[in-house]
Amino acid sequence: MFQLVLLSHQQQIDVGNLSLSAELMGLPKAIPISVQQTCLMGGKQAGSRLITLTVGDSVVRVVPTRGMAVLDVVRKDAARKDVRFGWDSPVKDVVHPSFINQEASGGLGWLDGFNEMVVRCGYQWAGHPGQDGDEFLTLHGRIQNTPADEVVLEVEQVPPYRVTLRGRVDEKRFKSTNFELQTALSLTPDEPYLLLEDTLTNKGSYPREYQAIYHNNFAQPILESGAQLHVPMAELSPFNDYAAGGLSDWNQMPAPTKAFDEMVFNIRPISDENGFSHALLHNANASCGIEVSYHTDTLPVLTVWKNTDTLEQGYVVGIEPGTSFAYNRAYQRDLGLVPTIAAGESKHFVVRFGLLTQAEQVNASVANIAQLQNSQTAQVLSTPIVRLG
Amino acid sequence: MFQLVLLSHQQQIDVGNLSLSAELMGLPKAIPISVQQTCLMGGKQAGSRLITLTVGDSVVRVVPTRGMAVLDVVRKDAARKDVRFGWDSPVKDVVHPSFINQEASGGLGWLDGFNEMVVRCGYQWAGHPGQDGDEFLTLHGRIQNTPADEVVLEVEQVPPYRVTLRGRVDEKRFKSTNFELQTALSLTPDEPYLLLEDTLTNKGSYPREYQAIYHNNFAQPILESGAQLHVPMAELSPFNDYAAGGLSDWNQMPAPTKAFDEMVFNIRPISDENGFSHALLHNANASCGIEVSYHTDTLPVLTVWKNTDTLEQGYVVGIEPGTSFAYNRAYQRDLGLVPTIAAGESKHFVVRFGLLTQAEQVNASVANIAQLQNSQTAQVLSTPIVRLG
Amino acid sequence: MFQLVLLSHQQQIDVGNLSLSAELMGLPKAIPISVQQTCLMGGKQAGSRLITLTVGDSVVRVVPTRGMAVLDVVRKDAARKDVRFGWDSPVKDVVHPSFINQEASGGLGWLDGFNEMVVRCGYQWAGHPGQDGDEFLTLHGRIQNTPADEVVLEVEQVPPYRVTLRGRVDEKRFKSTNFELQTALSLTPDEPYLLLEDTLTNKGSYPREYQAIYHNNFAQPILESGAQLHVPMAELSPFNDYAAGGLSDWNQMPAPTKAFDEMVFNIRPISDENGFSHALLHNANASCGIEVSYHTDTLPVLTVWKNTDTLEQGYVVGIEPGTSFAYNRAYQRDLGLVPTIAAGESKHFVVRFGLLTQAEQVNASVANIAQLQNSQTAQVLSTPIVRLG
Repeated sequence: MFQLVLLSHQQQIDVGNLSLSAELMGLPKAIPISVQQTCLMGGKQAGSRLITLTVGDSVVRVVPTRGMAVLDVVRKDAARKDVRFGWDSPVKDVVHPSFINQEASGGLGWLDGFNEMVVRCGYQWAGHPGQDGDEFLTLHGRIQNTPADEVVLEVEQVPPYRVTLRGRVDEKRFKSTNFELQTALSLTPDEPYLLLEDTLTNKGSYPREYQAIYHNNFAQPILESGAQLHVPMAELSPFNDYAAGGLSDWNQMPAPTKAFDEMVFNIRPISDENGFSHALLHNANASCGIEVSYHTDTLPVLTVWKNTDTLEQGYVVGIEPGTSFAYNRAYQRDLGLVPTIAAGESKHFVVRFGLLTQAEQVNASVANIAQLQNSQTAQVLSTPIVRLG
Repeated sequence: MFQLVLLSHQQQIDVGNLSLSAELMGLPKAIPISVQQTCLMGGKQAGSRLITLTVGDSVVRVVPTRGMAVLDVVRKDAARKDVRFGWDSPVKDVVHPSFINQEASGGLGWLDGFNEMVVRCGYQWAGHPGQDGDEFLTLHGRIQNTPADEVVLEVEQVPPYRVTLRGRVDEKRFKSTNFELQTALSLTPDEPYLLLEDTLTNKGSYPREYQAIYHNNFAQPILESGAQLHVPMAELSPFNDYAAGGLSDWNQMPAPTKAFDEMVFNIRPISDENGFSHALLHNANASCGIEVSYHTDTLPVLTVWKNTDTLEQGYVVGIEPGTSFAYNRAYQRDLGLVPTIAAGESKHFVVRFGLLTQAEQVNASVANIAQLQNSQTAQVLSTPIVRLG
Repeated sequence: MFQLVLLSHQQQIDVGNLSLSAELMGLPKAIPISVQQTCLMGGKQAGSRLITLTVGDSVVRVVPTRGMAVLDVVRKDAARKDVRFGWDSPVKDVVHPSFINQEASGGLGWLDGFNEMVVRCGYQWAGHPGQDGDEFLTLHGRIQNTPADEVVLEVEQVPPYRVTLRGRVDEKRFKSTNFELQTALSLTPDEPYLLLEDTLTNKGSYPREYQAIYHNNFAQPILESGAQLHVPMAELSPFNDYAAGGLSDWNQMPAPTKAFDEMVFNIRPISDENGFSHALLHNANASCGIEVSYHTDTLPVLTVWKNTDTLEQGYVVGIEPGTSFAYNRAYQRDLGLVPTIAAGESKHFVVRFGLLTQAEQVNASVANIAQLQNSQTAQVLSTPIVRLG
């Protein structure tokens, strides 16, 4: 196995700009794998790093400086045309965490850097800002604005030539939190999948509440008028009164719509025999789509964030498995959605992205989800399960 | 035209330390133009950049890292003696924005980095900190603590050999603000002027309120006992009760005065036929001065900030054209001083600094302002137009 | 004298990684002195610097980026075994100040970087977060999260070959604070002492309140079950009701104890004829210890922070001389513990660490403290001197 440490406090390694061909990684020359790291510059990007993994038909961009976020993925379809997985936020910079003040504007500062395809929310808390007892919680927790350490690239030198990028992100405060998150992102040249396997460990001596939401965001070309979401669900409810008004076509996507703002839907999903659930968003003619699969053992609920406002506002749909819905933590204990991690315990989160660029792949996913739904009728609640104050 | 990109996200360019002679810029050797960029270090300067433009008798220092602020200008007078335009804040570092927490101390953190000659306030809001409805606004907005991108130097290779420094500063937050500010600063070897031409564009889909104050600050040698301010005005009012007590000699400058603190005066200026108004501060014997000219179309009001406390406190006078006065935004809607920028719209701000080092220049400016005042008698209000809570 | 500027705004010097042998510093080759500086990387360390001074049997690590903090000291005992002075916080990174938001979580953000042996608290304020009149004070003030400037190494080239590291840390805000702190840390190869001599100067025109606490923290091998604290005291009182319950064995240290959390004790110490008081913590068999000596002229009170919770929580005891106790400033004016520094005035703080690795040294310190106590009976108050709201 080829292994390269890109960033390490322990080993005092900080590889800056980097470009690795297959040969440099000890692979047969024909294997379509290459890796780059770029030191970003300009505006609030100064200090951010960007790692680009080209693996077969997929190009994945990862931001170690922002908690190992996935900025986006581009995958070639059968016609060698690029299908982009990600979205266009009004925020263009890969914002370095030192420019983010999460406490700003009533806890909304997190939005100053929000533009990635995969944004981790957590792990002390996730969800909307606000007071929870004595604590003021800022939007979606702190992990995304924490730079990673021990960033390591691994490339298998035999088929299937799996490429794995690891990074550790600490969430620590004296007397409060002693969390370590080991992230691993992997893919192979032959498969249309991007796999995230994260492990959260409580290194402290006391049990702690935690929350996680994988805030995965997608837009054009998958999102468009007529795009459709498929989710096998036991229960669907609107996040608030505004979303209640959109229940009837909650999974039908409109074109960019002025003043749409956002509708959020809470889902309790149905899992398959392996403990996975799957959510699919495909474009209008079902020729491409994104399938988000996740292990419901640790990510038992799903938030759908239908933010189909104008392009300039960031036309986007979020498919977000989590421990919890997007409410402030204060509301979620009664819902049973604020789990605890014991001292020394580890929790594993698995999210797999199906980067579907062929109609057959989309159809197979639709069929699979339909079959999961067959076992059970979705209960649709017409009013929110939480009364917001 | 000689053009050099100093910093660019798009082009992945970050020129560090740099020193350019006239010849290197393709100019005749005798043309007195040179350019330097320095990477600052030490204390809270770490990461800041400083660009020094020497153009004829003027040396201008610009801080791209702090929103293209002008740190100061030094210009040689007829006797080749330096006249400095700027001031001595107790804050000595060119503070990198990552060390500023604007939310600190009730929204006063901005003051930790306040020491430039030209400090832009805005553009979502400007003015004093405090609550405005649901929003808590920090002092003078966010633009000054935002690093620029796409910093470009342009030097004309033919007379008048205009030197222009451009930079873009973004003020963006998902679902909130999508502003881009294009700044341009220019000067020529032959003229005693420094010209700022800024363009604010609302890249979002919705109209937004905005505010701008050009917080221009000047001290010795222009500011001294007997220095005098000339402003053509339709209306003058004291900012608060304390300033009301100083109305009678509002434009006469004292020596550094212990416990003076600050008096602030609100002015509705008179413009000339080109839409420009002019404010002049000259020293006691009117041998040098600073003339601030500005287009009142977008900068309709003027704040005079008479902060003639001790030297150690930062003896300084601010001459500040703006969309608004220095009150918190909450107070200014009723005054008609919270304008709106439509989706896609651009607003242009023009401020020209006359770096007057000769008595004739000062006299001409005094005469010009007097003539503007001739058309109208200034209305002086003895009490503040806003009752502060 | 060998002198090397490591960081200087004035001289535009920023020495990065550095390794100096005795010879390179012009010392006889046999003199056991060497100096290193390392640029840290990974996680929230990015941008931090670490200076390692090896002087005789002591290795001192200093963090210029965090206000000249002392990360830890390791000293060889007679058997050449390392004795470590410092502690193991759950926070492992040497956190760069740009990642700290002291306003976070009700003013507790300081805890995100808290892991050094010597942590300066101050100088505008120290103590617990909370409202003091119009001001919200964050935990323990701002100095520790302020990078130093003018960092200078000095090594005497004749016996006793004193090594001194100086650095200036500014605490400045326009219209508010104009403090400069000159720090000096020194030691010689022959003596088991580390000496801190700090000078705080008010460069402003007005008198200001100030506070300082030298938050010195120690753990294994000195801290263990049976470790004991010796303090010559005029008065002892518990910080709060919880500590009141631990008064009877306040100076006896338990093994790491689950759910112990922290007990804090307030001490008014007795000084010797030179104005110094001494506090000693030694291990169970009194074979090694840390003696904290301090000039009570400017540091009149002592806080003992008995945080003997589990190892993972940061098992540690703080021996903290200060102008003040650890209460929020609002409570301390009535105690006479919020001093004022006049305009232009300087205050000197002297703290000397005895790095005791021999039983005789420990015994001598015990005897010295006992003798100081002989002059006076300690008054023990059973209830806190402050009623917390």
